[in-house]
Amino acid sequence: MSKRISDEAAAKAMEEIRSGPSSFHHGDSLPYIHKVGAPPKQNLLTEIKHAVKETFFPDNPFGHLKDQPGKRKLFLGLQTVFPIFDWARGYNLSKFKGDLVSGLTIASLCIPQDIAYAKLANLDPKYGLYTSFVAPLVYAFMGSSRDIAIGPVAVVSLLLGSMLTDEISNYKTHDYVRLAFTATFFAGITQMALGLLRLGFLIDFLSHAAIVGFMAGAAITIALQQLKGLLGISTFTKKTDIVSVMRSVWTNVHHGWNWETIVIGVAFLAFLLITKYLAKKNKKLFWLSAIAPLTSVILSTFFVYITRADKKGVSIVKKIDKGVNPASASEIFFSGKYLGAGVRIGVVAGMIALTEAIAIGRTFAAMKDYQLDGNKEMVAMGTMNIIGSLTSCYVATGSFSRSAVNFMAGCQTAVSNIVMSIVVLLTLLFLTPLFKYTPNAVLASIIIAAVVNLVDIDAAVLLWKVDKFDFIACMGAFFGVIFKNVEIGLLIAVAISFAKILLQVTRPRTAVLGRLPGTTVYRNIQQYPNATQVSGMLIIRVDSAIYFSNSNYIKDRILRWVTDENEQRKEGIQYLIVEMAPVTDIDTSGIHAFEYLHKSLQKREIQLVLANPGPVVMEKLHASNLANKIGEDKIFLSVADAVATFAPQAEP
Amino acid sequence: MSKRISDEAAAKAMEEIRSGPSSFHHGDSLPYIHKVGAPPKQNLLTEIKHAVKETFFPDNPFGHLKDQPGKRKLFLGLQTVFPIFDWARGYNLSKFKGDLVSGLTIASLCIPQDIAYAKLANLDPKYGLYTSFVAPLVYAFMGSSRDIAIGPVAVVSLLLGSMLTDEISNYKTHDYVRLAFTATFFAGITQMALGLLRLGFLIDFLSHAAIVGFMAGAAITIALQQLKGLLGISTFTKKTDIVSVMRSVWTNVHHGWNWETIVIGVAFLAFLLITKYLAKKNKKLFWLSAIAPLTSVILSTFFVYITRADKKGVSIVKKIDKGVNPASASEIFFSGKYLGAGVRIGVVAGMIALTEAIAIGRTFAAMKDYQLDGNKEMVAMGTMNIIGSLTSCYVATGSFSRSAVNFMAGCQTAVSNIVMSIVVLLTLLFLTPLFKYTPNAVLASIIIAAVVNLVDIDAAVLLWKVDKFDFIACMGAFFGVIFKNVEIGLLIAVAISFAKILLQVTRPRTAVLGRLPGTTVYRNIQQYPNATQVSGMLIIRVDSAIYFSNSNYIKDRILRWVTDENEQRKEGIQYLIVEMAPVTDIDTSGIHAFEYLHKSLQKREIQLVLANPGPVVMEKLHASNLANKIGEDKIFLSVADAVATFAPQAEP
Repeated sequence: MSKRISDEAAAKAMEEIRSGPSSFHHGDSLPYIHKVGAPPKQNLLTEIKHAVKETFFPDNPFGHLKDQPGKRKLFLGLQTVFPIFDWARGYNLSKFKGDLVSGLTIASLCIPQDIAYAKLANLDPKYGLYTSFVAPLVYAFMGSSRDIAIGPVAVVSLLLGSMLTDEISNYKTHDYVRLAFTATFFAGITQMALGLLRLGFLIDFLSHAAIVGFMAGAAITIALQQLKGLLGISTFTKKTDIVSVMRSVWTNVHHGWNWETIVIGVAFLAFLLITKYLAKKNKKLFWLSAIAPLTSVILSTFFVYITRADKKGVSIVKKIDKGVNPASASEIFFSGKYLGAGVRIGVVAGMIALTEAIAIGRTFAAMKDYQLDGNKEMVAMGTMNIIGSLTSCYVATGSFSRSAVNFMAGCQTAVSNIVMSIVVLLTLLFLTPLFKYTPNAVLASIIIAAVVNLVDIDAAVLLWKVDKFDFIACMGAFFGVIFKNVEIGLLIAVAISFAKILLQVTRPRTAVLGRLPGTTVYRNIQQYPNATQVSGMLIIRVDSAIYFSNSNYIKDRILRWVTDENEQRKEGIQYLIVEMAPVTDIDTSGIHAFEYLHKSLQKREIQLVLANPGPVVMEKLHASNLANKIGEDKIFLSVADAVATFAPQAEP
Repeated sequence: MSKRISDEAAAKAMEEIRSGPSSFHHGDSLPYIHKVGAPPKQNLLTEIKHAVKETFFPDNPFGHLKDQPGKRKLFLGLQTVFPIFDWARGYNLSKFKGDLVSGLTIASLCIPQDIAYAKLANLDPKYGLYTSFVAPLVYAFMGSSRDIAIGPVAVVSLLLGSMLTDEISNYKTHDYVRLAFTATFFAGITQMALGLLRLGFLIDFLSHAAIVGFMAGAAITIALQQLKGLLGISTFTKKTDIVSVMRSVWTNVHHGWNWETIVIGVAFLAFLLITKYLAKKNKKLFWLSAIAPLTSVILSTFFVYITRADKKGVSIVKKIDKGVNPASASEIFFSGKYLGAGVRIGVVAGMIALTEAIAIGRTFAAMKDYQLDGNKEMVAMGTMNIIGSLTSCYVATGSFSRSAVNFMAGCQTAVSNIVMSIVVLLTLLFLTPLFKYTPNAVLASIIIAAVVNLVDIDAAVLLWKVDKFDFIACMGAFFGVIFKNVEIGLLIAVAISFAKILLQVTRPRTAVLGRLPGTTVYRNIQQYPNATQVSGMLIIRVDSAIYFSNSNYIKDRILRWVTDENEQRKEGIQYLIVEMAPVTDIDTSGIHAFEYLHKSLQKREIQLVLANPGPVVMEKLHASNLANKIGEDKIFLSVADAVATFAPQAEP
């Protein structure tokens, strides 16, 4: 039984452990009151070293390099930068089988998606394929996730398209493509810089809730954009908000819609959604949804070629250039009027791409239980996009849908990305002419089918159930995206996330504690209505570290509790006990707030008593001499001890 | 004795209190394991109402209006806006005696300071006097502090002068004065808006540490600026950094210094510092330091008038216009190119002025134990500066030095400000010509003597002792101000303060716990080296609420602890116990992080056990179904209970 040891034994052990004024007698009913000792002072250098380490290197990235001979250190360092040297040695045929199958599967999925997503970014379809060739190769050497599938993704393509068009509205000009490469280059620089400077934690400031809302909004925006292709509308708004798009759709209803296009589009959309539904119902059928897009493309292309439906107004892809990625280093704007825009778009797109990639990486790392080094991933992503921008790629990242297929198809390592990359290369070299008659309506269907999964209603419901504030952040981002545009949605998401942090650090909780009947356990009286307050005493728990941002609030809140309770109670209050257990740290502003509190209470003839301060707080109470001002005999190991000392008559 | 009740009784009482799966038997050595129940669900509306109230109305400003009849409500509401209606009814002759004496004392102090500070802002001396006439009157009606002395202050004057000169470098133009009024107007608007929108907590983001550094830097900058007047240098740099100023001083050493000026300046500086020193040694002599500035002005003016030292190069004030404040509403730039600058300068100056006023107000409120409503103070300050800007005043706020004198001279209410205001009015009406021969060197001495107190070395030492990070913030602000300028210093201070908040919310502490020998108390093994770990178990305490900003860090950090300890221990780890006592809240990102943690641990065949989650956390664990995934039987009231259940052989 956990509590069967005697209190005396416990007390004795505590005495041995702690320094400082130890035992203190108060009447004969109190043989032992344990004192809270201050911990030994730490060396300043150690302290700083420790703080820097925990802040920037919590994952201890070079831990395994320690105590190794020079040559081995070099090799291990190389492994740290290029994880492929680590896992390649243990690579074998059975692993390759898994990677081959999954690589081929994601390749069949990515080729039609690449063509479609490039159009979302207002780029030629070939750039989507280029991106799916170079980026996965680079990632395979540097990335530490084994399951992520790299390439262009819908949300980043949309964001890029939207931001690029804001700068250069005519996306058919060569400058538009050049700006896309410029943005990709700076997206890579941003990602790499975040990783190298160990600032990876910055992406954590975009909360999960905000991402859920942003992704759902982006998915709906993307789907709405596809109405153009799906309904065969030729004059369509350039805006992305739901009002403009729906107006565009309805004004075209009588003469702008093309029924042949609609038949093709809706038929294949139904096919794609049904295979998706089947795959969801039965996990073993996942391959069905994986090959459905390519099947749709082949069937619809063949159908259009046979019927020459393109002559009846069904718009087709027309021409995709043959051949591998041309070099594009000279295309990037390193100066001139578009440099600023390129940097800005690159930073935003790079951060969003990173957020998506890290979220995917974490999900699968947790499923297979391996560690994913966020900062290392960022460096890998950054390198990938920098090299991409020099070889005619646009921003690549991890794709939710393809990564899931990759995982389910049994991928073992990043070799599946290499397999996919080779398939894309072969496509670029030999197969692109075959896409000439592919109807755009099928590409629209493929996009819609791909993004429906981004609308995660279950996640939104969970947000509502668990945390209302998270739900507001989610809805804010969602409505921002669908009623305005992706940038505004993103801005709202970040703003709400920051507001939450501000609230967290300025308005911590405080609670009045009462004793649970017949025990010495003190709990929040609002949660436990039958907890009773001790006569003449007010016990308050502060539920946060006390810093400059909340110290005044905490002081004022405590004084208000005192005033309110003092009015309500006939006998008044003689002791204020502050339960400090959750107060993990206190800074000088916090110390000052307690000094003010102490002074105010003195005027009211109320004693300030502290219960259970942690080691850091205790150290600072001593350093600032506040412990002396309050009185060492007013600092107790627990609320129960303090009550026993000052209100022995209240003993249960 | 606090712990003498039996465990059985405690357990029984707990059973009654809690709902949920209650008792649970595990072997015969464990008759009672208390379960942590989830609290009853709160009504959503109540929850939101409560959150809004705690965030924006923690001081319950209209609490006293509740349950009052209509007419009385109106009167009480009026009292809330104009506290003078509250305290005026209890006002009596004895209080007036105190206010009269203190009002006269601060008037004698403020007149020379006003003239000197106006010059710091590059304004005509009369504007300093104007400001000391209108602002204190307005404050007396609306302010809730009884001790604060209102008027122009050194730091805000310097800041204003520096920022205004950046916009209009020739401060002799009329536009310069107009911009000063514009900035004052928007400073008032800013202050009022902060108060009305209940955003007063924003000024708490400038930490105490940053203010200490900023004030000390500003004081030294101000003192250095006075070398111009004190040494009688005619061509002086316009920059405020220490390097430029010292260069200016040394290049003028051979022909630029005026020895008559130096004699006057240094003599009176010595006089002022000595009286200050005496007053500090003996509190009863405070009046000595209070009247010393006016005495210096009178003596030096008389001396210059007699000796006509102004003809020997001693620079004098020359002329101060007679008469009360002219209206200046038409002078404010409500449009045109200076509007933007006016708003920007106003916002910065308004915030700094507010910070100073609130800090003073809080200090004296704590000394006399009355409540100071921060938001109400801001509305008062804002109104005061808006009215001021319409009546030829510049930014006014509470002065550290004069408020202290006011307090020591025995002020009772804001009437002392009214007395001071009347004296200033009389001066404006009749006495300004007398200042014609006042040497600028004496004004320089008065400023230097006034600002030396802003360099608070004791506070800096305390910062160093208590919190190294605070010390860095302090030094950053200090060096920023003296080596660059006040705006840069301010920026550094705010940036470091924010960095600290970011650190706080992204890198919370975690600790490995061990059992103190012979007890069931679990403490940090780094603080208590003889605490022992339980075989096969790792016990970790998370010292923060778990939010999106830190959830990934916490998860990764815990997994790293597990990996490290698993390698070190022969017997490995079978149970990970997470002590949740300091985790006051968790959001959806936190829930997800724990799901990942749970999955990762499952792969490693380690059981995840939670100890002592708080009510909010418990509610969210249930709402998200995570409690079920982990298993209700893995959630314990305390670490001791969890250890007793899973490692009964480890019992002490």
